[in-house]
This record gives sequence, structure tokens and C-alpha cells, in this order.
Amino acid sequence: MAARRILAGVCLSGLLIAWSLMSLADPAAGAGGNADERAVRQVLDRQTDAWNRGDLEGYMQGYWKSPALTFYSGGTITIGWEPTLARYRKRYQSEGKEMGKLDFPEETIELLGPDAAVSRGRWHLVLPGGKEMGGLYTVILRRLPEGWRIVHDHSSAG
Amino acid sequence: MAARRILAGVCLSGLLIAWSLMSLADPAAGAGGNADERAVRQVLDRQTDAWNRGDLEGYMQGYWKSPALTFYSGGTITIGWEPTLARYRKRYQSEGKEMGKLDFPEETIELLGPDAAVSRGRWHLVLPGGKEMGGLYTVILRRLPEGWRIVHDHSSAG
Repeated sequence: MAARRILAGVCLSGLLIAWSLMSLADPAAGAGGNADERAVRQVLDRQTDAWNRGDLEGYMQGYWKSPALTFYSGGTITIGWEPTLARYRKRYQSEGKEMGKLDFPEETIELLGPDAAVSRGRWHLVLPGGKEMGGLYTVILRRLPEGWRIVHDHSSAG
Repeated sequence: MAARRILAGVCLSGLLIAWSLMSLADPAAGAGGNADERAVRQVLDRQTDAWNRGDLEGYMQGYWKSPALTFYSGGTITIGWEPTLARYRKRYQSEGKEMGKLDFPEETIELLGPDAAVSRGRWHLVLPGGKEMGGLYTVILRRLPEGWRIVHDHSSAG
């Protein structure tokens, strides 16, 4: 056990030295939290832009494309990317439904560690007839190989 | 810049070797995520126990005692530990109100990094007259000097 821990320490040390050398070649390395916050904001902004041009599939790209995605709305749990898309389709793209214009007042982004972040604030939707809907949201994002993605969404109506 | 990065790598390596050696003396070290998950669960369990004996102040000990605590419920944002306590008092301890028995079905705990975690699931409250209330919750916890504490709560009624 002792030997294995020391060996693990030495191996990690080697990796860290390698990282130190590799980062010389990458001017963006070490930019830290601000770069991550910008990356998260970009994912969320792209979602909003997609929604506002009526592109629900584009909007859904901000979510983790996994059967383990969790989507909480009011008292209903939806699990998985496909069921979440189906829920959005039913609510906003079925007959007589419209997507409208979405914005997120009071949006904040906070890093929770090297690979996780939370964004929270208000959601606000204006439908073409002028009807407004709104409420609060909390989304957890993870840094995945494909980029930052929402892995859990909790929204409630106000 | 190059020299500083290599130096940083070497220093971190030293720390890791020291950690490898130190962990020999601490049988709990290296238990990692599971120990943190247990610590988070303990905070949440203590909250439930406090609630179920009518101890609202005890329940509130699970929350970050800070003016920056955020509490989202339906469409309402409450900011700060004191205002959150005041909100609970008004809803569950004012005249004719009762705290009832609380439980959290489908509770999950997930670490988001070395110092952050998310717990989510359903909340379920049975009032003394038998009336039931419920919905969903998502809480973000941080490891603080005083222990793991909820820094953001989003609850919605079902």
C-alpha cells in the first residue's frame, strides 16, 4: 500500500512536469477561470441564439447528449437528451405552439471546480402574441470532451 | 515564463510526494469521493432530522450562513441566510402553519470537483392534518472551513 502510494505520487509528478513543459507551447494555458467562464457563456449564448431563430435542435446542442441528462421542471423529472428534446417539441413546436423570444435576465456563471460550473438566474419568454412567461433556472455544466455542456437543468415558473 | 512553469511543476511534484507519504499515516486519506459524499449526506440528513423535530434553526445550519446564499423557489429569489430563515418562518412557523414531516425521495449526491457537490431529487412534506406537498429540488454545496454547506437551493412545487 505504502509503495503504491509513493509510486502514484511519483507518476503524478512526472505527469505534472510533462504538463509544465507542454503548457509552454500553449499560450492560452493558465488563463484560468475567466477563459472557462467565457466558454460557458458562449455555450449558453449559442443556445439562446438558436432558440430565437426557432432552431430547437441547435438549442439542444448545449445539453449533454446522454441518456443521463436530467431536466427538472416544476414537479416533473425528464431523464435523457432525447426525452428532453421531445418535451421541448411538445411544448413549443406542436400545433398552435410557438417558440417566441427567450432571454435570461440576471444570469450568473460560477465555476465550481476545474470541470464544473453553475449558471442561474431568470428565464423570460415573449411569445409572438405578446404573452410573457418566466421563472427561475439553475443549470449545472460539466467540461466534457465535446466542450462545456449542461448536465442538469432545473427550471421553475414564476 | 518557461522556468516558472517548470518550477511550479517541480514544486507540485514535491507536494504530491509529500502527500503520498503523509497519507500513509492517515487511514482515511485516499477514501476520496466516498468520504466527501458521506460528509455531504450527513449535512443533508441532519437538516432533515432537525426539520422533523420542528427545529428550524437546526435545519438552517445546513445552509451557508452568508448574505450571498441564494434560495430559488418557484419564481422567487431570496438572497442571504437571514432572509431565507425569515421566509421559512413565515411559511412554516407563523400562526396556523406547521412544519410537518419532510423526506427526500430519489435523493442523489454527485461531487462536481474537490470542493463542490450537487444534490437533487424530490422533496416531500406531510403536514399533521395529512395534507401532502412535494416537488423537486437541486442544491449546490461547497466545502467551506465550517464544513459542507448549501450555497444555492432551487426548489419547485409539483
